[in-house]
Amino acid sequence: MRRVWFNGELKSRTLPLDPRDRGLLLGDGIFETLLVLNRTALWANMHLARMESAAKELGIGFARDAVDDAIAEILDDAPETHQVLRITLTRGGSTRGLGSNGGTPTLLITLDPFDPALMFQPVMLATSAIRRNPTSPASRLKTISYIDNIAAAREAAARGMEDALMLNVAGAVACSTIANLFILKNGTLVTPARDQGILTGVTRQALISAAGQLGIATEERAVMPAELLSADAVFLTNSLRLIRPVKSLDQQPLAQRDLSEIEASLCDSARLQCGRAPKA
Amino acid sequence: MRRVWFNGELKSRTLPLDPRDRGLLLGDGIFETLLVLNRTALWANMHLARMESAAKELGIGFARDAVDDAIAEILDDAPETHQVLRITLTRGGSTRGLGSNGGTPTLLITLDPFDPALMFQPVMLATSAIRRNPTSPASRLKTISYIDNIAAAREAAARGMEDALMLNVAGAVACSTIANLFILKNGTLVTPARDQGILTGVTRQALISAAGQLGIATEERAVMPAELLSADAVFLTNSLRLIRPVKSLDQQPLAQRDLSEIEASLCDSARLQCGRAPKA
Repeated sequence: MRRVWFNGELKSRTLPLDPRDRGLLLGDGIFETLLVLNRTALWANMHLARMESAAKELGIGFARDAVDDAIAEILDDAPETHQVLRITLTRGGSTRGLGSNGGTPTLLITLDPFDPALMFQPVMLATSAIRRNPTSPASRLKTISYIDNIAAAREAAARGMEDALMLNVAGAVACSTIANLFILKNGTLVTPARDQGILTGVTRQALISAAGQLGIATEERAVMPAELLSADAVFLTNSLRLIRPVKSLDQQPLAQRDLSEIEASLCDSARLQCGRAPKA
Repeated sequence: MRRVWFNGELKSRTLPLDPRDRGLLLGDGIFETLLVLNRTALWANMHLARMESAAKELGIGFARDAVDDAIAEILDDAPETHQVLRITLTRGGSTRGLGSNGGTPTLLITLDPFDPALMFQPVMLATSAIRRNPTSPASRLKTISYIDNIAAAREAAARGMEDALMLNVAGAVACSTIANLFILKNGTLVTPARDQGILTGVTRQALISAAGQLGIATEERAVMPAELLSADAVFLTNSLRLIRPVKSLDQQPLAQRDLSEIEASLCDSARLQCGRAPKA
């Protein structure tokens, strides 16, 4: 870990954490993960707006100015190479009890090197037995309570796959453990809608915008698993890998129509913001 | 917080936590909460067996001997008054990635005073919009990923209620945010079965045993919400409050048949183990 900022200052080693911190004790917090290109955090406003909205829904204090200052401090003199910035905000320490309000929120920001070779690589998926629950805040908000995704990722790894396809409790497609999913069918991009138990990703949103600029139609709706098998292409979006084509689902090969146009449009949007293309 | 034991020693203030700790970053860990009577942790073997089983399922290292030693150390010379012992075990620090194995697990044990006046008190419940998902490890195992329960507890508090009734995604009764639920009907105790999206509580298990000794029949099955309204009594069990009668659901009063026989049997079991009755 290259740099660690914690509650007001840069730290070199361990965190002086309150033993009552509700992030550590109860997964009571939220986070964001951002790609840093050329010392600029990509789509930072969208990430921070999402974080602020989640904090508000959960009743956790969020001081946007302080977060902006901390990000500026940790990125100051950072390497120009690809980095990953993670922002973690917990409800802070409190007395016992689920409903306790917590004290001062804990803010942890870390910066790590990121290997661009991991971007845009095809991925094989296995369908997880763990379903997404649309009534759960953990499925809609980027909270620390990530154990379902972790268990699904471990289950996929045990089957030799890099990620898992997660369905929702109604049996429709939701997402992977770390990414949103799109299918391309007859020239239209289709992705599971907000009410399908998904986290609405920043790259998902950026891709929908990029598609609009290219004149590609997009649909947000319920997607059934069988639609993946008949699609012209299936791909994942997330904030670090950006786009990854899905080459197989449960060892069944999927069609792989060329995605270079949409990929180039997304990369252009990143380059315009950061002064550097994500693809080296 | 009276005492804090962290990774091998008693600490007086903050924890020197690895900034990559997966408990803090991803809710990737488990915990147990135990009532301490007379310096003895109640039903400790059942709690630690459950924790070991959850650790095994999630692939987190669990060293029972080390945990036993740490508990003995933190309870040594502890006050004789009621205390609450919380054991938290995380996957430890790791490189980025959901599927990473983590390094050495983090073990945090805390001891706090507990007010016995909070036990056995009646409670009013409000039905939560957040459903329990039986396919989720977070619903079956006592993981740190507790945000659904927290959000449900906050929602109940906003409606002036102390706890929430959580249904599962099929619409059957699961539990409260911190307790299992039982109904008494025609002399039989009925509680949602293991596959209903519940954590199988230690006090739930102790109560089923106590009922057996009293010759009271118990059923573990799906329970529909309407059954609460026609029950002779409804009550919650958890490790700290032991038994709490439910006096109303969504502001509708529930029947409150006397529970003193089953309560006395549970308290006897605790007194036999700890040499002190939970009820002062």
